[in-house]
Amino acid sequence: MIVLKISGKIFDEENLIKEYINIIKKHIDRGVIVTGGGETARRYIERARGLGASNYFLDLIGIEVSRLNALVLIAGLGDEAYPKPAESLVELKSALSTSRYVVLGGLQPGQSTATVASLAAEAAGARALINCSAVDAIYEEDPRRNPAAKKYDEIKASELIALLKSRALPGTYELADVWSLEILRRSGIPMYVVDGRRPVLLADVLTGRGRPGTIVLPE
Amino acid sequence: MIVLKISGKIFDEENLIKEYINIIKKHIDRGVIVTGGGETARRYIERARGLGASNYFLDLIGIEVSRLNALVLIAGLGDEAYPKPAESLVELKSALSTSRYVVLGGLQPGQSTATVASLAAEAAGARALINCSAVDAIYEEDPRRNPAAKKYDEIKASELIALLKSRALPGTYELADVWSLEILRRSGIPMYVVDGRRPVLLADVLTGRGRPGTIVLPE
Amino acid sequence: MIVLKISGKIFDEENLIKEYINIIKKHIDRGVIVTGGGETARRYIERARGLGASNYFLDLIGIEVSRLNALVLIAGLGDEAYPKPAESLVELKSALSTSRYVVLGGLQPGQSTATVASLAAEAAGARALINCSAVDAIYEEDPRRNPAAKKYDEIKASELIALLKSRALPGTYELADVWSLEILRRSGIPMYVVDGRRPVLLADVLTGRGRPGTIVLPE
Amino acid sequence: MIVLKISGKIFDEENLIKEYINIIKKHIDRGVIVTGGGETARRYIERARGLGASNYFLDLIGIEVSRLNALVLIAGLGDEAYPKPAESLVELKSALSTSRYVVLGGLQPGQSTATVASLAAEAAGARALINCSAVDAIYEEDPRRNPAAKKYDEIKASELIALLKSRALPGTYELADVWSLEILRRSGIPMYVVDGRRPVLLADVLTGRGRPGTIVLPE
Amino acid sequence: MIVLKISGKIFDEENLIKEYINIIKKHIDRGVIVTGGGETARRYIERARGLGASNYFLDLIGIEVSRLNALVLIAGLGDEAYPKPAESLVELKSALSTSRYVVLGGLQPGQSTATVASLAAEAAGARALINCSAVDAIYEEDPRRNPAAKKYDEIKASELIALLKSRALPGTYELADVWSLEILRRSGIPMYVVDGRRPVLLADVLTGRGRPGTIVLPE
Amino acid sequence: MIVLKISGKIFDEENLIKEYINIIKKHIDRGVIVTGGGETARRYIERARGLGASNYFLDLIGIEVSRLNALVLIAGLGDEAYPKPAESLVELKSALSTSRYVVLGGLQPGQSTATVASLAAEAAGARALINCSAVDAIYEEDPRRNPAAKKYDEIKASELIALLKSRALPGTYELADVWSLEILRRSGIPMYVVDGRRPVLLADVLTGRGRPGTIVLPE
Repeated sequence: MIVLKISGKIFDEENLIKEYINIIKKHIDRGVIVTGGGETARRYIERARGLGASNYFLDLIGIEVSRLNALVLIAGLGDEAYPKPAESLVELKSALSTSRYVVLGGLQPGQSTATVASLAAEAAGARALINCSAVDAIYEEDPRRNPAAKKYDEIKASELIALLKSRALPGTYELADVWSLEILRRSGIPMYVVDGRRPVLLADVLTGRGRPGTIVLPE
Repeated sequence: MIVLKISGKIFDEENLIKEYINIIKKHIDRGVIVTGGGETARRYIERARGLGASNYFLDLIGIEVSRLNALVLIAGLGDEAYPKPAESLVELKSALSTSRYVVLGGLQPGQSTATVASLAAEAAGARALINCSAVDAIYEEDPRRNPAAKKYDEIKASELIALLKSRALPGTYELADVWSLEILRRSGIPMYVVDGRRPVLLADVLTGRGRPGTIVLPE
Repeated sequence: MIVLKISGKIFDEENLIKEYINIIKKHIDRGVIVTGGGETARRYIERARGLGASNYFLDLIGIEVSRLNALVLIAGLGDEAYPKPAESLVELKSALSTSRYVVLGGLQPGQSTATVASLAAEAAGARALINCSAVDAIYEEDPRRNPAAKKYDEIKASELIALLKSRALPGTYELADVWSLEILRRSGIPMYVVDGRRPVLLADVLTGRGRPGTIVLPE
Repeated sequence: MIVLKISGKIFDEENLIKEYINIIKKHIDRGVIVTGGGETARRYIERARGLGASNYFLDLIGIEVSRLNALVLIAGLGDEAYPKPAESLVELKSALSTSRYVVLGGLQPGQSTATVASLAAEAAGARALINCSAVDAIYEEDPRRNPAAKKYDEIKASELIALLKSRALPGTYELADVWSLEILRRSGIPMYVVDGRRPVLLADVLTGRGRPGTIVLPE
Repeated sequence: MIVLKISGKIFDEENLIKEYINIIKKHIDRGVIVTGGGETARRYIERARGLGASNYFLDLIGIEVSRLNALVLIAGLGDEAYPKPAESLVELKSALSTSRYVVLGGLQPGQSTATVASLAAEAAGARALINCSAVDAIYEEDPRRNPAAKKYDEIKASELIALLKSRALPGTYELADVWSLEILRRSGIPMYVVDGRRPVLLADVLTGRGRPGTIVLPE
Repeated sequence: MIVLKISGKIFDEENLIKEYINIIKKHIDRGVIVTGGGETARRYIERARGLGASNYFLDLIGIEVSRLNALVLIAGLGDEAYPKPAESLVELKSALSTSRYVVLGGLQPGQSTATVASLAAEAAGARALINCSAVDAIYEEDPRRNPAAKKYDEIKASELIALLKSRALPGTYELADVWSLEILRRSGIPMYVVDGRRPVLLADVLTGRGRPGTIVLPE
């Protein structure tokens, strides 16, 4: 059992989704896929903010867009996917007893999809969470500013938590937050960071031909 | 009790939504609002079609986008609206016993939001369905081609059904289909066609200061 | 995957149901069965009309009777059937991932069970819809009035739609309406019309020993 | 808060239902109505038994018919009734916080509607359960056989339980069973037995103009 | 298919639960387990009674504690158990089509878990109900008072019902009540009484190495 | 609208609950109450851990106990409370449109009840969150170790977050975590810390006779 998190940004490009569908069908025997909201979410949230919507509703709108992305993925995966986005961890657990793939977006206001992915990995008893994100790895500094910035091949979740507490790491906001890392750590699940814009890297990790940009060890 | 149908195209413009919220709060005592999917729906459906999604899923995706628009409207209406899009007519009925406004998008694959609006009007026992659409009225011919085309001030539903069966009327696809008109007719509910791009016209109709572009009589 | 529609009239005769159960168990590997309401529905609807019930409730009562018939069929099919009537297309899809047979009645006010059958066929990805109806085939004229009336061995859905729009065809009301045919057409699913009063004909069609009264081609 | 139980037999006669609806609207401020299944239930259960249905399904079919009767009553009561039959005691409790009347049929296999009525009275905190039954009162012997049979004006629930344990009382099967009486007793709710075939008697009891055939005291 | 009822008292001792989990996994191919509430239920009910809670809520609290015990058992059984306590017989039936084990606590106020176990056995089509109770068998008199009291090796359900109606049998309250026995009888399901404090006895009964304390025949 | 969080530890003492019920009924016009799990939760979680339960199930068990406490409170509050614990924020919002009080326990694995309280305050649009906790205020150091430890009369949420990131503050674990404070801050909701073991202090805060131990300002 593998949990895949696919950044909402990926869903803004149709070709990438097609590649992900092929890779999932080919290389993942049983899995959970968590989808983000991406550009459409941001646009809808802005629109609702302009109407005076509360934070509760802004988050809910983001969740609905991430579920829309989940539905698109389900439609593409076909009959081996549970036919609707799971809307709670309990539904996720039940769905896993009937379907090969279960897809879900956000679950609750005030919660990142990174955290949803960790909770899903814990609930599903996954051996790893693969985070197909908008960055290729975790860096000590922003590689766009400092091309010589150190890239972490491996980092302990506890170290990453300490880093996140002291300062914002570039591009990691969507990738992981303290809460999502605490959950991975307590359940001993490693997180693999993979550049989501290049789906072939996911195939490489799944088949052992390549390794993730960064491995976050559950320590 | 009034049922308002707001074309998805309206949701592509934030300013219009704000005006609709103000008019609903000011002039509608109790009401149901049915929202379409608009441009975002079309874009998402295209994306899913490219992934080989079946018609069932394409329709489901359209429904989810219309519910997203419903959620935006709910967020703007605030505490007097039922806090989520109704997902069935039974939920609509229950919600009406607790909330002043209930908002919903699509309900089921294979069904237009025009039909949803008629079903909602019937279930809610509404005295009229006001269709805020992307056209200003029903015409005998396309007014963009023939500026002298006859505009219907009033038309019987049975006549409109006959016209729709014999040929496509310009711009009426989203406005009404045979099924939606049959429902209005059997339950004796008139439909007022109002130019949705000019919300002030809705205010005028609600306050009696103006009249709809076309009235479809339930005969 | 086959979708079977069984006319509510069949449910008024216990012996016929028993035969259908045997045929389904013997000849259908995986299937969806849609049940109509029949005489009990008509009686209940009349009763409620006498109490001043709205069209919304009249349709709801018809749906509940069709679900009662579905439950009887489920009880007869035993453990290989999903244990309750599916109440939405989403539930139908989920149920199909756990059970060999799924049975459902109506889904929503304002919608014929013919349309439910088409939607179910589309959602389930069925290769055909077999309509076990109260007539043996589709005729150009009423065969009870004109014994020489032409019987259609095959007819295109588009032709049948055109015929239905121009005039009422004898006995086809329950069999198909414009909406149900449009759905079959857009998803490329043929409909086989079989005389529901003679279940052996269904067995013949399923085993290839006989052919349907009429085949409606999804063109 | 009053709980009314209306025998399924009453639902076999349309005129009686109409009278009940008028009486409920006129004389009951807030109430729960529990409906039985009657002749249709018996017919459907027989049909399913002939198909080899298990006791679980036979009971479920009886419940569905009682809910169908509940729906007819709801349709007749109109907007002041909760718009669907409550399907659990929790739903009953919630529905009572939004609607003046809540109607329900059976709840669970293996349970009489007499017991449902007692549970509903307990959950709703009703001051009395009025049982509009197919008999006019509780008798010591069958009054059809012995015209001089003693009629109970009042009887303690504990005495009635003792009588029911020792022998079958005529016509009381549908009226009350040991379990339904134990519930009334533990919550201190009296049951009024009224001849359901004469709705005017219910009006008399509700307005204090008449008294029930028998009062079962919760002792 | 076997239905196991485990007395709530057993859940007050962690070691016993562990043994039950091992035995279920080892010896039961497909099964339903019904859990009681035990000491925690009693304590919570007392607390709520002190707050003036109605009988409806007292029963609901007992049900929730029995579901808490069900959840503990599910957590121990792992992925082969349906991931949540079934909350209705319909959910039990559905769950059985996806999972090897389904666990449930109480279902409804006013109903013993003994009755739930009988209903579950009937719904699941179980060949036997094994009652792991706080007594080792059914006795004619209380064996703690009269060490020579006759133990029933076998007793007909009808005889046990007659005994329960005439007087309270020692320790049988939680084991069986009239209603639970009527259900077993009508569906022809035997009940095996096994001393729940000694799980090895359950293993013996399941493997045929030993026999139950008492067999209640469905006659 | 006020949101009250009552520590699970309070639920271990019946007298305290009774006092809380009286204060809520007397001084809170409309409110949401969030209940913790307390000693029973800890005991049940330990038991399940001994059976090898995963973190997902351990958290779920804690949630169920907190809902049990919620149900006890509902039973004590009577008919003005929504009759069941809300199980999602959407249900909370709906329930608030029908009931004066809504009570809930935990919502999701991996989430503290402190966070649930913040999310509930945000969703309900509450003007304040009152945290009736097991400590009387927030201190700079543990007052049991250093009796001269500085007590915060007021503290900014941002300062408290910084403190929580740098070191564990005594007794604040259950009171607040980074996530719960971020939510209060983004929605501008102050948190009042009140000694939950002395309910009179809550009455004093609600009536303006006293002030909280600490006010956490949403800055």
